[in-house]
Amino acid sequence: MISKNQVKHITSLHHKKNREKERLFIVEGVKMMDELLKSSCEVHSVYALEEWVVENALILENKEFELTTISAATLEKISTLTTPQKVLALVNMPDYEIKIDALEDSLSLVLDDVSDPGNLGTIIRVADWFGIRHIVCSENTVELYNPKVVQATMGSLFRVMVHHQPIANILKANKNTVQLPVYAAVMGGESIYTAELKKKGLIIFGNESMGIKRDLFHYVDHTLTIPSFSTGSDYAESLNVAIAAAVVCSEFRRRR
Amino acid sequence: MISKNQVKHITSLHHKKNREKERLFIVEGVKMMDELLKSSCEVHSVYALEEWVVENALILENKEFELTTISAATLEKISTLTTPQKVLALVNMPDYEIKIDALEDSLSLVLDDVSDPGNLGTIIRVADWFGIRHIVCSENTVELYNPKVVQATMGSLFRVMVHHQPIANILKANKNTVQLPVYAAVMGGESIYTAELKKKGLIIFGNESMGIKRDLFHYVDHTLTIPSFSTGSDYAESLNVAIAAAVVCSEFRRRR
Repeated sequence: MISKNQVKHITSLHHKKNREKERLFIVEGVKMMDELLKSSCEVHSVYALEEWVVENALILENKEFELTTISAATLEKISTLTTPQKVLALVNMPDYEIKIDALEDSLSLVLDDVSDPGNLGTIIRVADWFGIRHIVCSENTVELYNPKVVQATMGSLFRVMVHHQPIANILKANKNTVQLPVYAAVMGGESIYTAELKKKGLIIFGNESMGIKRDLFHYVDHTLTIPSFSTGSDYAESLNVAIAAAVVCSEFRRRR
Repeated sequence: MISKNQVKHITSLHHKKNREKERLFIVEGVKMMDELLKSSCEVHSVYALEEWVVENALILENKEFELTTISAATLEKISTLTTPQKVLALVNMPDYEIKIDALEDSLSLVLDDVSDPGNLGTIIRVADWFGIRHIVCSENTVELYNPKVVQATMGSLFRVMVHHQPIANILKANKNTVQLPVYAAVMGGESIYTAELKKKGLIIFGNESMGIKRDLFHYVDHTLTIPSFSTGSDYAESLNVAIAAAVVCSEFRRRR
């Protein structure tokens, strides 16, 4: 059984303000739960249909979180999804801080105000695929624990570390210490197919309509562009930022 | 002024059944209208806030469609968007048929039951960017004129030809006549970075969860995979289909 207060508590976590206060976020669905239970994330509590509890009895044996069996009607009440999917978990937000040294031996992404939840979620999934462990997000980038972001990651948020903080500070620290090459994905830069791409570095992607803020270019060593093969007088003006991130990451990894 | 019957007519076009009966679809927003008016698509009628009409007076001078100025409240009634954007147009569905000869000199995409509207829209935008003129979609692929597909294309649907029809027929016709190489994007195929990729051909992408239907592999010459660089025991299982399409198209074009 679930109390009215519990329902109220869970639905309060649909809102960013309450997630931040409680340091809890929502994960939903069978596939996401599989990924969550394999991860090192600390689960606070799970609310599931009996069907899911029975199917996962073995996996649940050694787990220490609170598990509550609920009805489909209750799941509908607490879910953030249009079509709820058997199970919903509350998860403690992990605490991790980024220092520039952590990025020293790797390729990492920097997001300047990416605003669409689906885009951020997809970029996290892309980073996971291409073995990128860290994403630094500007403070105005959409919140990592927005349910739409969480669901769009398809579980990759349990493997990629996403840091929200002033990105100018990270870029400045990089310039003053480890001096990783800094790339910026822009219109009218050097072709990613012919540019020199190092194994390690930081790649900046900008906001969906505004691109990368001007003052960040002070820290940029190379501007990169995905060439268009569109012909004729009329052509596509841009690629979606998550698509661009995937194509750029693929090209960096291909060269490795 | 707009009549109650007109409002009813437009909202009826939110549904596939009525769109197909009337051969009309909905296009919304300032950016999409710009793209529409530059295209060769035949506009049936436009419903816009006065603000938009004033801003576009010059462009509208030589246009022959019916233009109705409406209030923000009316736009809200007829819009398919959560946040309506100044203007909505009804557009005649273009009539075009695909024959295999049309694909002979080019690289084209084949989609087997892609079901998410955002994915189809994004794939059309990707195709436009990479200069791909034709996409053949299985009959169960999401409808091209679904408003979510239309909006996700960001105008690219006015430049890329999308054909819904039995894809086995196209693949069979190809085998019997022009014999373009047929590639399939799958898990566990040859790496796209090292596979031989021709300038011309057909690339098949499958459904988001089921992949490509088994009986189509009869027509496939090469299976292709985007290598994952994820390390550790736990890793991303797949890439989103629109992301995969972008990375694969980029690699084909890079070699050109």
